[in-house]
Amino acid sequence: MNANAPLNVLAADANPATSLEQRYGAAMPSLGAAPNAVIESLLGHRTVRAFSDSPLPEGTLEWLVASAQSAATSSNLQCWSVVAVQDPQRRARLSVLANNQAHVRDCPLLLIWIADLSRLDRAGEKTGIATAGNQYLEMFLVAAVDAALAAQNATAAAESLGLGTCYIGAMRNHPEKVAQELGLPSDAFAIFGLCVGVPDETRPASVKPRLAQSAILHHEQYRVENEPAAVVDYDQVMRGFQRSQNMKEVDWSAQSAERVSGPGSLSGRDRLVSALRALGFGLE
Amino acid sequence: MNANAPLNVLAADANPATSLEQRYGAAMPSLGAAPNAVIESLLGHRTVRAFSDSPLPEGTLEWLVASAQSAATSSNLQCWSVVAVQDPQRRARLSVLANNQAHVRDCPLLLIWIADLSRLDRAGEKTGIATAGNQYLEMFLVAAVDAALAAQNATAAAESLGLGTCYIGAMRNHPEKVAQELGLPSDAFAIFGLCVGVPDETRPASVKPRLAQSAILHHEQYRVENEPAAVVDYDQVMRGFQRSQNMKEVDWSAQSAERVSGPGSLSGRDRLVSALRALGFGLE
Repeated sequence: MNANAPLNVLAADANPATSLEQRYGAAMPSLGAAPNAVIESLLGHRTVRAFSDSPLPEGTLEWLVASAQSAATSSNLQCWSVVAVQDPQRRARLSVLANNQAHVRDCPLLLIWIADLSRLDRAGEKTGIATAGNQYLEMFLVAAVDAALAAQNATAAAESLGLGTCYIGAMRNHPEKVAQELGLPSDAFAIFGLCVGVPDETRPASVKPRLAQSAILHHEQYRVENEPAAVVDYDQVMRGFQRSQNMKEVDWSAQSAERVSGPGSLSGRDRLVSALRALGFGLE
Repeated sequence: MNANAPLNVLAADANPATSLEQRYGAAMPSLGAAPNAVIESLLGHRTVRAFSDSPLPEGTLEWLVASAQSAATSSNLQCWSVVAVQDPQRRARLSVLANNQAHVRDCPLLLIWIADLSRLDRAGEKTGIATAGNQYLEMFLVAAVDAALAAQNATAAAESLGLGTCYIGAMRNHPEKVAQELGLPSDAFAIFGLCVGVPDETRPASVKPRLAQSAILHHEQYRVENEPAAVVDYDQVMRGFQRSQNMKEVDWSAQSAERVSGPGSLSGRDRLVSALRALGFGLE
């Protein structure tokens, strides 16, 4: 980290100045303007739950999937799939399964990302090779990571096109019912959804601040010493953000601990192990 | 997907034409040039294992982490951390734990991504709130997905800066020893590494083709009908790629099935469950 070569390979965007301040609140000294258009676009991420009625431009889905497939995949196994749901009735049914979130029903494109070992099962059938390794937690994790890397590339691509997105973890509230709705084969699991659409400009979303880098980034070894001060600051940064959004004020540390206070706080996902076993995963 | 609005919000890059052909081989009709610089950069991903001796420009690490923190995170829990390893001796020791991969030893920056529930444990201690929910597989999965989304944003940022990257799944071959090397607290797991560096121009990497979209992208429901033809084509595309790289020719379907043929093909990761339990995860 000690050379003076320029950081900007891609041309920087027109509106660079405030991205770090928005991302960290007052807690982090500025590095200056984002070095290029890609990083500027990544830093501008916000969760969009309000979409306009505008349809998506032709080719959008295919570019999102091409971007997703361009992400790294463990050993090139490509252990993921994606189901594009555009039928309003199917989106409405999936919304009911995902805690009745309105944006699941109302977005023009709902992408359901599948941690998918079934294609390897079929490759085994085609070649006469056993695929008993699929029954291990390791392979479930490979599929989950493959799906997440792919989805994040699709998200970055969508946002670069001016679209808004919202991940839907609640797609795990009823895994077997979601699998049935989507006709998933054995060894395939809908790990999360992603709403995609044109943001409703009358209900704009804001960039949410994150913890200071001192709480997340460690050098050489993990050290917790910097974390308490960073969390105290962040509790205040989030209270300021909540005030600006007319949301109820609460410390991040308390809200986050409450979120994992026990099995009852997991929205039914405390039964994920049995759901995955019912879907064919061994998790050995 | 039926409007005619333009796709290009960001300005397109200078060298747009061949990205889809490289990504899919001859198997997919072209959509034309990538609509903007972000998508062009995502489509240009390749795994880089050969790095030059050039140090990274000042500020690189901080921009990568700011990009990573800008990714979505489930319920804003931010269940991940990253350890930046630049000490050559530590990289050498980690290389030994990761199947002796030379690029782990030789890259200037090794980022180890941590699926990290320990911060929530500390938030619980700070606030006096129980965090028994951390003991469920669901929360391990949340942490794994959070870490993967963050890492992929860092990868996209690195590539936009002209840097090369390589994910290191072998960081899971010896989880307890990696945790010890990095001084990880309980409930923290090194899910993968990421080598970052300036690509060695004398040993350039190539874009690896992927399965056709017809095998990955499903509309409304999962359908396997298109997959057999896509896999037959892809086996040939990959043989062509392997020939072009002077690699041994093998069908993707056979190579991939072999990779999961049984516990012995998982590089020691068949014991992931017991390793995670030893690191504090309940996986209930």
